[in-house]
Order: sequence, then structure tokens, then C-alpha cells
Amino acid sequence: MARYGAQFGPDITFLGVDRCDWADVATYADADIVILGAPFDGGTSHRSGTRFGPQYIRQTCYLPHDGSRPSLAMRVDGLQDLRVYDAGDVELFSGDAARSVKDLQEAVYAVTRNGAIPLILGGDHTIAWPDAAGVAQHLGQGRVSMIHFDAHADTGNIEFGSLIGHGQPMRRLIESGALRGDRFLQVGLRGYWPPPETLGWMAEQNMRSYEMTEITARGLEACLTEAFAIATDDCDGVFLSVDIDVCDPGHAPGTGTPEPGGLTSRQLLDSVRRIAYELPVVGVDVVEVSPPYDHAEITSFLANRVVLEVLSGIARRRRDAVDGTVWDPRQPLLDGR
Amino acid sequence: MARYGAQFGPDITFLGVDRCDWADVATYADADIVILGAPFDGGTSHRSGTRFGPQYIRQTCYLPHDGSRPSLAMRVDGLQDLRVYDAGDVELFSGDAARSVKDLQEAVYAVTRNGAIPLILGGDHTIAWPDAAGVAQHLGQGRVSMIHFDAHADTGNIEFGSLIGHGQPMRRLIESGALRGDRFLQVGLRGYWPPPETLGWMAEQNMRSYEMTEITARGLEACLTEAFAIATDDCDGVFLSVDIDVCDPGHAPGTGTPEPGGLTSRQLLDSVRRIAYELPVVGVDVVEVSPPYDHAEITSFLANRVVLEVLSGIARRRRDAVDGTVWDPRQPLLDGR
Amino acid sequence: MARYGAQFGPDITFLGVDRCDWADVATYADADIVILGAPFDGGTSHRSGTRFGPQYIRQTCYLPHDGSRPSLAMRVDGLQDLRVYDAGDVELFSGDAARSVKDLQEAVYAVTRNGAIPLILGGDHTIAWPDAAGVAQHLGQGRVSMIHFDAHADTGNIEFGSLIGHGQPMRRLIESGALRGDRFLQVGLRGYWPPPETLGWMAEQNMRSYEMTEITARGLEACLTEAFAIATDDCDGVFLSVDIDVCDPGHAPGTGTPEPGGLTSRQLLDSVRRIAYELPVVGVDVVEVSPPYDHAEITSFLANRVVLEVLSGIARRRRDAVDGTVWDPRQPLLDGR
Amino acid sequence: MARYGAQFGPDITFLGVDRCDWADVATYADADIVILGAPFDGGTSHRSGTRFGPQYIRQTCYLPHDGSRPSLAMRVDGLQDLRVYDAGDVELFSGDAARSVKDLQEAVYAVTRNGAIPLILGGDHTIAWPDAAGVAQHLGQGRVSMIHFDAHADTGNIEFGSLIGHGQPMRRLIESGALRGDRFLQVGLRGYWPPPETLGWMAEQNMRSYEMTEITARGLEACLTEAFAIATDDCDGVFLSVDIDVCDPGHAPGTGTPEPGGLTSRQLLDSVRRIAYELPVVGVDVVEVSPPYDHAEITSFLANRVVLEVLSGIARRRRDAVDGTVWDPRQPLLDGR
Amino acid sequence: MARYGAQFGPDITFLGVDRCDWADVATYADADIVILGAPFDGGTSHRSGTRFGPQYIRQTCYLPHDGSRPSLAMRVDGLQDLRVYDAGDVELFSGDAARSVKDLQEAVYAVTRNGAIPLILGGDHTIAWPDAAGVAQHLGQGRVSMIHFDAHADTGNIEFGSLIGHGQPMRRLIESGALRGDRFLQVGLRGYWPPPETLGWMAEQNMRSYEMTEITARGLEACLTEAFAIATDDCDGVFLSVDIDVCDPGHAPGTGTPEPGGLTSRQLLDSVRRIAYELPVVGVDVVEVSPPYDHAEITSFLANRVVLEVLSGIARRRRDAVDGTVWDPRQPLLDGR
Amino acid sequence: MARYGAQFGPDITFLGVDRCDWADVATYADADIVILGAPFDGGTSHRSGTRFGPQYIRQTCYLPHDGSRPSLAMRVDGLQDLRVYDAGDVELFSGDAARSVKDLQEAVYAVTRNGAIPLILGGDHTIAWPDAAGVAQHLGQGRVSMIHFDAHADTGNIEFGSLIGHGQPMRRLIESGALRGDRFLQVGLRGYWPPPETLGWMAEQNMRSYEMTEITARGLEACLTEAFAIATDDCDGVFLSVDIDVCDPGHAPGTGTPEPGGLTSRQLLDSVRRIAYELPVVGVDVVEVSPPYDHAEITSFLANRVVLEVLSGIARRRRDAVDGTVWDPRQPLLDGR
Repeated sequence: MARYGAQFGPDITFLGVDRCDWADVATYADADIVILGAPFDGGTSHRSGTRFGPQYIRQTCYLPHDGSRPSLAMRVDGLQDLRVYDAGDVELFSGDAARSVKDLQEAVYAVTRNGAIPLILGGDHTIAWPDAAGVAQHLGQGRVSMIHFDAHADTGNIEFGSLIGHGQPMRRLIESGALRGDRFLQVGLRGYWPPPETLGWMAEQNMRSYEMTEITARGLEACLTEAFAIATDDCDGVFLSVDIDVCDPGHAPGTGTPEPGGLTSRQLLDSVRRIAYELPVVGVDVVEVSPPYDHAEITSFLANRVVLEVLSGIARRRRDAVDGTVWDPRQPLLDGR
Repeated sequence: MARYGAQFGPDITFLGVDRCDWADVATYADADIVILGAPFDGGTSHRSGTRFGPQYIRQTCYLPHDGSRPSLAMRVDGLQDLRVYDAGDVELFSGDAARSVKDLQEAVYAVTRNGAIPLILGGDHTIAWPDAAGVAQHLGQGRVSMIHFDAHADTGNIEFGSLIGHGQPMRRLIESGALRGDRFLQVGLRGYWPPPETLGWMAEQNMRSYEMTEITARGLEACLTEAFAIATDDCDGVFLSVDIDVCDPGHAPGTGTPEPGGLTSRQLLDSVRRIAYELPVVGVDVVEVSPPYDHAEITSFLANRVVLEVLSGIARRRRDAVDGTVWDPRQPLLDGR
Repeated sequence: MARYGAQFGPDITFLGVDRCDWADVATYADADIVILGAPFDGGTSHRSGTRFGPQYIRQTCYLPHDGSRPSLAMRVDGLQDLRVYDAGDVELFSGDAARSVKDLQEAVYAVTRNGAIPLILGGDHTIAWPDAAGVAQHLGQGRVSMIHFDAHADTGNIEFGSLIGHGQPMRRLIESGALRGDRFLQVGLRGYWPPPETLGWMAEQNMRSYEMTEITARGLEACLTEAFAIATDDCDGVFLSVDIDVCDPGHAPGTGTPEPGGLTSRQLLDSVRRIAYELPVVGVDVVEVSPPYDHAEITSFLANRVVLEVLSGIARRRRDAVDGTVWDPRQPLLDGR
Repeated sequence: MARYGAQFGPDITFLGVDRCDWADVATYADADIVILGAPFDGGTSHRSGTRFGPQYIRQTCYLPHDGSRPSLAMRVDGLQDLRVYDAGDVELFSGDAARSVKDLQEAVYAVTRNGAIPLILGGDHTIAWPDAAGVAQHLGQGRVSMIHFDAHADTGNIEFGSLIGHGQPMRRLIESGALRGDRFLQVGLRGYWPPPETLGWMAEQNMRSYEMTEITARGLEACLTEAFAIATDDCDGVFLSVDIDVCDPGHAPGTGTPEPGGLTSRQLLDSVRRIAYELPVVGVDVVEVSPPYDHAEITSFLANRVVLEVLSGIARRRRDAVDGTVWDPRQPLLDGR
Repeated sequence: MARYGAQFGPDITFLGVDRCDWADVATYADADIVILGAPFDGGTSHRSGTRFGPQYIRQTCYLPHDGSRPSLAMRVDGLQDLRVYDAGDVELFSGDAARSVKDLQEAVYAVTRNGAIPLILGGDHTIAWPDAAGVAQHLGQGRVSMIHFDAHADTGNIEFGSLIGHGQPMRRLIESGALRGDRFLQVGLRGYWPPPETLGWMAEQNMRSYEMTEITARGLEACLTEAFAIATDDCDGVFLSVDIDVCDPGHAPGTGTPEPGGLTSRQLLDSVRRIAYELPVVGVDVVEVSPPYDHAEITSFLANRVVLEVLSGIARRRRDAVDGTVWDPRQPLLDGR
Repeated sequence: MARYGAQFGPDITFLGVDRCDWADVATYADADIVILGAPFDGGTSHRSGTRFGPQYIRQTCYLPHDGSRPSLAMRVDGLQDLRVYDAGDVELFSGDAARSVKDLQEAVYAVTRNGAIPLILGGDHTIAWPDAAGVAQHLGQGRVSMIHFDAHADTGNIEFGSLIGHGQPMRRLIESGALRGDRFLQVGLRGYWPPPETLGWMAEQNMRSYEMTEITARGLEACLTEAFAIATDDCDGVFLSVDIDVCDPGHAPGTGTPEPGGLTSRQLLDSVRRIAYELPVVGVDVVEVSPPYDHAEITSFLANRVVLEVLSGIARRRRDAVDGTVWDPRQPLLDGR
């Protein structure tokens, strides 16, 4: 198998799942999920370091790296019940954002075209542009909705003289027609960015952004339920983009632009699980994990679990679709074991 | 402009707002807010390090230091809609608490007398004595109520042989008559200090202290609403003193005397915002940020945002007073943009 | 007094309480509580470091180490109202788990037999086996129920070829008959371990395990109340085992196998307090604090406070039993002072 | 003065020296030295973070930031005896190395053309290309020799598909004709890079590289003296490029690609001083300081002192040229004071 | 290939060299070197954490993990010019030192018997017993001399009631007859351990121990030359045991029992290189790297380079033996390229 | 025994030596050495944190805290061969430097008057004033010479408006007549402080200061030998003051004002040993250890070893005086055991 492997460090896979080469369909013909590493931090506006996100998200787990993770809560094994491959990293030179965006989109598109769900490990949020665009390239412009967890809207226009960067991917996705503004759901925004003119542009696109104040006042569950209805209205699939800074810095210190007042890690895990279980997810990225700013790897642990919750949710969704059963979060752990 | 500047490090201002000299009224004649740094940690009973609080609270933000911070939630720009100046640090030798307290009060009084709200960046909590006393010196003894966020009551009498220190400012304020005990509201206390005799003294003063157990049992919102009624009863203004250790150590590790079981950062930000929006704030301090014990600057980020929430709340309060409008936390972010 | 003292570092006691020698009854004849250090990390499956847990739990407090801690919330002084002794460490060579387990059980049994409640400071969770077994050795096999806070079930069978280890103590306790499976209550489990066969074994034992999903859906208070009923049904006492990793890594980073999505420190403190106040506690351990992975000692602070909440709860329980009063968490702090 | 200021954080200058705008000659017409920040880490092959190098090198000093630093050893004040300005940062988007290199060279060239010595604070070593090329653009291709302190030769050809990067600047400088290979002196190389073919290319260019083994065997002083003779043979000036990783990781942990076995910080400071004092320095850069990997800011302190040693050496060189005196390192500190 | 892989984390090999299974000779029939991981920290007397030594020593390098490392200084590629395999970890339960020692010796013996040099990555220094004993098991009792770099003599008798531990391996080796006391050379000892009676035992064995005071007074080179003569007198090979704490804590903070006043990293690298080049090395271990106490991975980097210096030295020794050439440390890097 | 104990944390003694009360002569009538903790950081001009110096210097050692430390190099046990007591801390409120200085001097004087050598653990360098003055109070003004290891001269006049502080103690000592300027030897100065006028004052006092440049050029041994001659000329004893920042920040990061280019830890230990062995030491302090800025406690380890080298040197000096022997640093460790 010709395969790039890891851009930084040893060539490992996410918790030991099998390897594939995204450019060689034969290596993942039966895949449900293909993991791609996007070790890019050239689009970061402040602290860098997310280039090591893929390495740390893949390896930060204290259990054996044996390609199996049975979920206590969902009663499925996301790594075994689904066919999950790890294609390694796409080589992305952080000093060339334009080339990186293009190369990553090619990989994501290839995976999607070949029938698998791409799950991209960032890297900074710049990569959401090629990630979601690569999916839309196959499923159709405007046919994919976005659920976007983040402290920031990421709808800036130009930063440091560049259209490409971790503060601008969502604008590029909408402007390019890859995604529809009115199927763009944002959860967890807060703080002091972007400025009013950018918010005005967002309003014009009919985006729906849940700021933490609204979430606190109305409840996260209610907001999500409302968002799910929008996301599934006249769309063929949902792209889930999780910026780890949606969590409070106390839960996720290892990130580039921490903003106090965010979700707890419990809230994020539960939300991601609901999305994977309730919605037709067609692509995922988990971004902005910056290991040099982490402590005791708690942010990497969280990102690793976000990935596993997504996989567990999808696995359970598929099993319940076959079995005609419904998952109940109130079921005691040992009931029916 | 003659101006002391910064006691430690380069002479910067809070997120780039304009400079002034507190001793020269002409430099801030139109001020709504004047920021003062109080880089003092000589009153600390355990871990020191808060002398670097002013520097870190001023600079810890990933956005440009351009004197503008439009609040997503409040729809105002606290740094632009108000006239905010930063007077730099008051030189405070940590080895001379008595002189430091005197010098700081002089600066706070000057700012208040000249019509601006002083916003002091600590430093350890020793400074609350001169901070609130300086305001009362102008507004009148007993005319200012106090809302005090803290894990600790800070009503000790003598420590290490001294009447001055970060565990005693609240007693000094009440004993001196600057503030009334029965208009003294404390939020977030917990743990194993002070001892019963001190609590007895506090009860005698008719203070009202919300321990975390009561807050958890009754709800923070209810407790605040109750406290607001007391704070505004026969008083001309409210001093807000925020000890960052009111938050749980997971959210604010960078502090001198962390006490587990505190508020989340979301709770603190929402509470501070309510106070600034709903009450007539006449002075503020944010204290006990100890950068050497911080990680990834998350405590400094939080303190920086506490300041911004205060400013945003005041700005919105003033705008709504003019417009006759009312802020609704449930309003979607992009509504009406 | 012949006494081993501390295995690592200077010979200190928990916050300055008096010393005793567990092997010499005369030194603690009047004890309510005897603290034992168990500086063992040889049973850890991943990160080590818990051997320094006893040292850090004993010393991490900013208040004077004077053997007094009046609880604001409970209005008792757990270190004064109870007769608390610290017997120092039991020497435990981490390279010999079998001998360590045997030696520790001997010490715990001695303390229990002599009428005191043993409170063991770990160390990794391996020690729960000798801790609870030592208590049962005196009170009777199957006469003690277990309330176990943890992210993990710790019911594994063999790891690294060993029956002894921090992932297996609960199975050993049940298999040996020391504790009954149907009086085994677990709170806070989550994540991806143990695998289904182990869960099957647990179900066969009629254990009751509250995973975080159920806790979130039903509420922690409701789950605890339900658990308390089971724990006190036909049992003579409750052993409380607190693995600090039951808390979210944001609140307790200093631990060996952090699992995102856990309790807040507030929730843990309140839960532990309820148990100590409402149930007949006969033994306690606090484990898995790993100082080398901690930051600003926040995990050690939390563990120190868990111990104090236990002691405060027991002290108040005993006082209320005498006085016929009932503790009310809604009572304002200064009421009745 | 129109001036970009700081790309990250507050707009400060190196230890408080005066501001200038490199694009506006009038603002630094009398300059001896102009400092430029190059906050770029997009060319890094491994750990990023050097984008914060300029900020930390400027500010990491415990003395007042008052634009004065009298050298004990050299008996001059590099910041006062020379006219030193700080032009702030050149905006460099790390995601666009090609544009960054071009923009930085423009600034360096402007400074040189206007008669000042540019002193550039990196950033990763990518910037040595525009730094030295900008100087040569004015002084003439091949008229400037290079003394290059580094653990690495930085003569790679292509990395991650790019000709630009922190492992390739020295090849670009020689290939472009800006610098002559046979006037290229490298000090401190060690380890396992570059591979033989690159070393072959270097040999063909007649470069002279002192590996640590040779330095240890022959003595650093002897190697430097030898190098100085080459550097001043038929050249008009010397560019000094200091990669902080030339020091051992124990002395400079905060860097991107640490290589054990390097110089002590004492050796680096003494060497830099000799160069500035003995040779006609026409340009300087100090690179590869990565604050997120630093501890207690010791690497930033070292880089700050490297800058000051350069300035002190130049100041003393100029004074001695006037006075006809010679600096003697054996002179007791207080002699002649 | 049946193969245990990694006890902790993903299954990687030292810088990407090929895998083998030590129990299956066919997988490394042509090996010069076989690397074994010994992730054991159960014998540690103070700070634990060395169980992660193998993982970090294998992976801590910024260059591609491609199984090639051409040495600048030695002009060989230790990973290419020798046939180097990595057999992964030997599973060692830290809670069972006795079993661990036995299992590790079996693996080392197998490698030696099959003609390869074992290079063991610790783990704490407990493993030196099975490491050297395993080699002697094949080459003959007393036929192997030892050169031992360490701050400590490691000749204790019993600690924590155990004959096995990281302070006792050297006594066990001599007592068992595996090694001769009078062919036991120790370099770098210092501080306050062991006590006189242990030193007396060492003197009786005719060990030769170079304390740092003697090394400083006489020079390291002279001491080594003297030691080499002893080591090669009537012995068939030399075992090299490198405890990373032989270096000063400034160069190697990430270790269990740091002792100030040690070698620089440059001195250690040069010494190890001399040994590998000048002596007939038959076994090597590198121990006591404790990643949780490291900063910026500088200790892991150093240990990784110690391994590479050994391999480079052996490779050059073998080449020079064929070519009849002699390595000259004074040769300029680019000479003859 | 009435005794203050520890100002911060548990009441421990230096490595387990016996307790005494400095105010009660009977408790240390036979003392050779009395250790005093001076937990004061109120005089610090930049980073604070040295208040925890006494605690960390006392406890940072991995060996049993049993009051015994046999020196490998000196062949004495400084804690056993001398009668060493630890009097605990002198309570020093950091917010009141004037009172602190007075109280500390009283304790030091008491110890000296009662025939013991005071060994004070700082604390910031402010304490050198009362430390040396307390000794001179008994031995006579001008009868004690000073050997002062430091990166800084500490001869400032006023800082932050105060005559007392960690940059001024040496001026206070000379101005007050306690010490003679021409018997004041400084070793290790470097950097950019103090300014020329202060150096002029120092020259007027006929101080002798060895800057690192002179030390490097002439050799440390030669400089020390020269200094020893001055120190013992017409003086009755030598006070040794060791500021840990005399070492390079790589060896001692945990300090308040690190200055690159300092001594290695080996150099400091050897120098201190020579002084204690060759000169009549009458008082010692070890200052400026700031634990919050330390990593892996390496600075605390170093300071602990500085104390032990002093004690070992004094013990050997006394033994050799009796035996008529001379210590030889070249003697092999096991010779004569």
C-alpha cells in the first residue's frame, strides 16, 4: 500500500484501526468511515500548534490501541461495528494554505465519492472549508447542511491579507455555494468576535447561530432540537464540524483561541452523540486541538472521545435502523446485559 | 502626559484603550471608566504572584489590541460605546502594605471624584479596602453597597500580625464605616474558612453571605435576585468586587488560594453581566489572578472577560436607559442584525 | 511511639491531626477516624504517580496545618468534633502488589477491629480491595455495602497477567465474598471500558452502576437517593470509595486514566457530603490522585476537600443524632451564628 | 506615524526603545539599529510557536522597560549609546510563506538602504533568507559573509513540497547569489541532519561548518578565530544569524527542533559578543524561540540577552574605534569605575 | 509475526526501524541490534513514570521516522549501516518486579543467544539486572564487564523490603556472579547515597567508581581512558548501562531521582560515543527517563540521542575495522564529503 | 517546646533534623548549626514566590528524611557529624518588609550569640541584610567578610520607594557598618544591572566583584583563590550568601530574576564546598528559590544540595582540623573505604 503515513512522528492509526490509502480505493472499498489527518496550523490567527492535533487525537487513550472501543452508553463498538480505516495524514505544508486547502479537498472528495464518511482530524479550522466542500463536491452544492460547534462564527472575510484562514472557512463555504447559509447551524458562539458587519453578513445568509447566552437561557437540548429540524429540511446530509474551543477553557485548555464561558465536556459529548444518532451525518471534522497548550493531555482526551461518540452514535443509528429499536439514555448500564 | 506606566514589563493598556494619568484630570475629563492596575501581592496569605495580574488581564486576548470589543450577547462595544481610559499601574511596593493601601486609595478617590468609574485590576484582595474606600470617600460613608464574589469571606481580623492583608479587607471596610455591613452581599463562599468567631462577627454586621451549598440548593439566579434587592435598598451605588477564586479551580487554577466546588466561568460571566446591566455600579475590582499558577493563561482570559462583561453590561444599561429598550438574553444572535 | 511515618518525603499528618501507630492500639484507643496512607502505584494500567497521593492529599491546603477545619456548610469541625488520627503510611513496595495488598489489609483490619473508621489515602485503586476487605474482615463478609465513585467499573479480571491491579479490585471484593454484588453501587461510569463480557459478569452479580448518561438524563440527586436505599438494605455499613477520576478531567487532571465527561467537583463534594451525612459509613478511601499530572495542585486540593467533606458529614450526622436536628442545605450561612 | 505595530498582542517595543516605521525613513533617519519583528512560524518542520518569538524577546526582562541597558561587561549601554528603534512587526501570514518572505525582505532592504543595521526577531529560520538577502540587496550580491549559529545546517532543498521553509534558507541564499558559499560559516551543528547528499552540496559550495565534535575537540575560541578570518576576507560586512537551538536544550528548551549536546548559554553570549565587537556586523537575526515550549521564559530571556550582547558589542566596537582603546575581558568589574 | 507490540500506546518502533519478535529468531536472523522496550517503573524508590520511557525514547525526534539517521560526526548511519530491529515491549507488570525481572532476562538472553546486541529501553534501573544477566547467561558468568553511567551506585541491598528495585541491580549482578566486581566501572556518582557500609561492600568487590569530584579534578577523558583499560582486561565484552540521571538535572529533568552537579549532555554523548567506538559493546540499556517530569521532551530527546550515538559508534567501529581507518573528532564536517 | 513551626504548610524540618526554638537556648545549647526559614518574598522586584523557598529546600530530596546525609565526596555526614537543628520559620509578613527585617535579625542574632552558625533558607535576597547583620551584631561590626554568589550586585539604593528590598541588602550592610566594603567578595555577576552610578558606589567601597566575563577568562578556581585571600585578611569569619540565580537559568529556572550565562550547578556546588572547607564560615543563607517557577523541582534540589555541601564542608574542615588530614578531591571514591 502506497501511503503517506504521518507528517509528524511515527505512523500510527486512530486507536489501532486498519490503514488505508485514500488515493487507492481498493484499500478501503468496504469502508464506512475513513479518517484523515490534517496536520495544518498555518491558518491560525493566534496560538499555533494544531499541526500535532492528528497525532494526539489518534494516540491519546489509555486503553490498548486495538481497534475496538465498546461504548458503555450506546452498547455498540464504533470501531468494530463500523468499518473504520485511517488513511494517515494528508501532507499539508502550513506555510502554503492555498495548496493545503486544495490537496485536502481532493482527499476528502475521494473518500466521499467512494462511499465512505470522511472524518478529518485537524489541524486548525481552516480545514473546514475543504472538508465540507469535498463532501459537497460529491453530494451536490447546497445539499449538505452544517452543524458547527464553536466559540467563534469563523465567518470572517480576510485576515492577515488572506481569504484562507481559521477564521474564515464558513464564509468561503457559503460564498462558494458549497453550503447554504440557511442550513448553517452554529452552536456555542460567545465573546467579542466577529464584529457587527460580519454578523450582518451572516444574518443576510439566514444562518442560525446559538450564542451561549441563548443556550443558557433556553437550554441546550431545546436549541439542538430546533437546530436539527432546520438541518434536515431539504438537505441530504449533515456535516458536523467540532471546534474543541466550543468547550470552556477549563475543559479544553489546549486550543488556539480559548474563550471563557463555554460548554462542559459532558454537554459536548452528549450533543455530538445526539447528532450522530439522530441525523444523517455525511462528514465530520474535529479541529483546533493544540497539544503544546494542553495540560495532562485533557484536551486531546476530549477530542478523542468526540470522535468515538460520533462513531458510536452512527453505529447505533445503523443498528437501530435494522432492528427497529430506539436508544434510551435512561436505561441502566447493566440492564439487559 | 506624566504617567507612571507599568510597574512590571512594558507599558501597555487594557486591550489598547487610551492612556491617561489619574493625577491629571485633563487627561480623562470625559471618562466613563478609568482602569487602574494594582500590582500588589504583599498581602497574600499563601501563594503569591498576583502582582502580575494587571499585566496579564490587560494583555491576555487573542484579538487585536485595538480598543474595541463588540459583545455578541449585549450588542454594544464596551470599549467604544463608553469612554474607557487606562491610567496604568499605581506603584505599589509589595513589601509595604500600609503605604500601598494608602497610595491606591488616593488614586481611586481621584478617579471617582472626577466622575469616572474606577475599575481596578489586582493584585491580591488586599486592594478591595482602598478600592471601595476610595469610592466611598467621594460618594459618602455607607452610601455604597458591595457585591462580593469570592470563595472566602475576607473578613479576618489579623493575619501574620497585620491588620492589612488579602483575608481582611472586608472587615476593614465595614469597621471603618466606609461600607455598611447590612449592604454587604457575598456570593460563592465555601470551604473551611473563616472560623465561627469571624462568622459571628459577620452575622453581627448583618452581612448576607451566599455559601455554595445554598446557591446550589436554591439556584444562583434566585440568590442574585434576592441580593440585588438588598444592594439597592437605600444605597447610591454598588461596588462589585470579583475574586477570581469564586470560580472552581478547574476554571480558574491561576490563583492564590483555590477552593474546590466553585462557580463555573459561565456562571460568573452571566452574574457579572446581570449586575452591570441591572445595578448602578460605581466601582469594580477584579483580583487574585496569579499568572505563575495559571495554565495556558485560562485564568487570565477569564479575568479579561469579566472586565469586558462589566463594561458591556454598563454600556447596554446606559443605551437602554436612553432607548427605553430591554435586553433579552433569549434573543437569537442574528435577529435584527 | 513506633511508627513507620511517611514512605516518601517528610513525616507529616493530614492537616496537622495527631499521630498514631495502627499497630499499637493504645495510640488511638479513642479514635473515631484513623487515616492511613497507601502510597502504591504498582497496580496502575497507564500513567503512574499516585504513590505521592497520600503526601499531597495530606498537605495541599493553604490554611494552617493545625488540626482544625470548621465547615462553613455543615457547621461542624470534622477534625475537632471527631477524634481523628493519622497513622502515617503503610509501607507498600509498588513492585510487589501481592505483598502490598496483604500488608494494607492487615492495617485496615486492625483499625476497624479497634473501633475506628479507616480512611485510606491512595495510591491507585488497587487498594480498594484490601481497604474494603479489611473492613469486612471485622464487620462480616457481605455485611458492608459499597458506594463507588469512578469513571471506571474496576471489575476487570486479569491485566498484564495479574489478578491484582487498579482495574480489578471490585471483582476481587465480590468474588472473595467480602462484599455482595447486589449491594455494590457505582456512580459516574462512562467511556469505553470494560468490554461487554465484563459488563455481563457485573450484571450477573446484580451490581447497580449509574453511567453518566443515565445520571445526566435522570439527575444525580435522584440516582443517589435510589442508590442509598439499596446500600442500606440489609447491610451494616457502607464503604465509600472515591476515585478522583469520577470528576471531569477539567476538574481533576492529575489522575492516571482521565475520562472526559465526568462530574463537576461541586457535584462530587455534595454527593460525598450526602453519603457521610445520610449513611452509616464504616470505611473510606480516596484514590487515583497522581500529582505529577496535576496542575497548580487543583486535583490534590479537591481530594483534600473530599476527605474533609466526609469528616464534616460524619461529624454532623453524629451531632444531629444526639441533638435530633436535621441539616438544611438552604440555610443561609450567617443564620443562627 | 503610520505603523503596523504588533501582529500579536499589545504594541510594545524592545525593552522600551523608540518606535519607528520602516516604510517612513523620516522616523528613523538617525538610526544605528532598527529592530523588526518577524512573527512567522509557517516554515517550521516540526513544533510551531515561533510566531510569538518577537513578542517574548521584546518583553522578557525583569528590569524596567526604559530603553536603557548598561552592560556590566562591555561598559556601554547598547540601547543608549546606539540609536536603536523598533519598527514593530512586519505582518507575516504564516499560511503564505512566499508572500511573507517577499514582504520581509522589502522591510529589511529598506532599513539597510537607509543606513541602519536591521536586527530581526524571528519567527522561524525561514526568515534568514529575506533577512540576509535584504541586506545583500543593498550591499551587493556576495559582498556579505554569514556567521550562522545553529544545531542544523538549514541547507535543505525542498521540504513538504516547498522551496521555502526553516530548513532551507541557507541554500536559497547561496543559490540566489545573495551570499557566497565560501564565506558561509556555521557553528554548532550536530546530530543527524542533513543527509550526505546535502552535505555534499554544502562541500561543493565551500562552506565551512563547525560541528560540535570539532568544537569540543579544538575549542570554541579557536574555531571562532579561524572563522572570523574567513568571514572578513574580501567581504564588506557580516550577517549574524542566531538560531537559539544552537544552545543545548537544557539552556534553550523553548524551540522547535531541539538537539541535545549544544553550546551553553555562556558560550553563546560570549561568542555573539566577540562577533559584534570584532567584526563589521551589517545585519542580525535571532530566531527559533518558541514560547509555548519554554519554561519560566528561560529561552526568551536568553534570546533577549543575545540581542543585548550584539548591541553592546557594536556599541563598544564603535567607541573603541573612536577612543583607540581595546576591550579586555579580564578587567575586574569595578576597575576604573 | 506474533509480537506483543507496545504495552502502552500505539505500536511504534524506534524511529521507524523494522519490527521483529524476540521469541521468533526467524524475524531477526540477520540482526546486529535488537531493541527491547522495558516499560517498568515498579522498582522506583521515589518518582515513578519511567514506564513511558520506551514510548518516548522511540518517538521523540523531529525528523521523519524512516529508519535512517546519518550521523554528522561519525559519517555513518547507525540505523542503516547496522541491521537494527525493534522487538517492541516485553510486557512487564510494574506491580510484580520478580516476574518482570525474570521475563525480561528471558528476552535479553534470547536476543544475545541469537547473535544480536540487545539494546533495552527502560524503564527504571531495576532492569539492569536482567539486562546484563541475560547477556552474561550467553557469554559466560564474569566474562562481561560493565560501564555504568549514573548519579547513583545502585548497589543497595534491600529497599522497601525487596531485593529487587532500581537501587539494587548492580549488587544483584555481582552477587549472582553474572558480572565481576573488579570489572565494574561507574561514572558520574555524586551526592549522599549510598551510605558507608554499602560503599564498603563496593570496595570489597574491587569496583571502580568515578565520583564527579574526581571527574572534575582529573578530567572526564582521563577517567574514561583509565576505565576502558580495566573494562577490556580479561573480559569478552562490555555492557553499557546509561542512567539518564548521570546528567545534571538542567539537562535531564525528566527522571526519578535527580541529583544536581552532573555531566552535561555533551559530555554524555561524547562518552557514549567513545565507548561504542573503542570498546566491544555486547549490550546496552538506557534507563530512568520519566516523561511526566520532563519539560518540552528534552530528556527524551537526550535519551534518543544516546541510543543513536551508541549505534553510530558501533557502526563506525565496524566500518573502520574493515577499512583500517580511524575516526578523527577534529575532522571538519565537510572535509571529504 | 514553644516554636512557631512553619508559616506555610506542614511543620517539617530540613531533611528530618531535630527541632529547636531559637528563642529558647536550652533547645539548642549544643548546636553547631541552626537552620532558620525566612519565607519572605515582599522585597522582590519582579517574580515573587520565594516565600515557599524554605518549605521546598527542606523537603526536596528523594532519600529518607532521617537526619542523615553521608557525603560521597567529603566522607562525612553533615547532618550527623555536626549537631544541626531546625528552628522552623520566623514569621515574616511579606507585606511588611521593615518589620520582617527586624524580626529576622533578632532570630539570627540569638542563634549566633548562643554559639551556633545560623543557616537561613530564603526567601528573597532582602533577608541577607538581617542575616549578615545579625551575625555581625555578635561578632562585631566589620569583623565578618562576605562571599556573595549572585547574578546581581544587590547594591541598589532605593526601589519602589523603599530602602528595603531584594536588590539593596548589600548596600544596607555596608552603609550600616555591619560589613566592610573591602571585605565584600561577589562572584557570578553579569548582565545589565546595576547602572554605572551604583557601580561607582561599589568601587568607592572597594568591593571586589567577579563578573562572569572575568571568571570565564581567568577561570573560576583562580578567582576564588584570590577572593579567599581577601576574605580572610583581618576578619574573624566569613558569611556566605548564595543567590541561586548565580547559576544559569538552565540549571536554576525556579527563581525571580533569571539572568542567562551563569555558573553550572557543578561549579556552584564545588565552590560552596571549597568555601565551607577552606574558610571559617560563621553564617550562611541560600535565597531566591521560587518554586512556582521551577520545573520538576530541579532548583529546589540544587538549593537543598547547596545546604548539604556547606554542612559537609564544615564537618570535614572540623574533622581534618582534629586529625591533621587534608581532603583530596582526586581521591577515588572507594579508596580507603
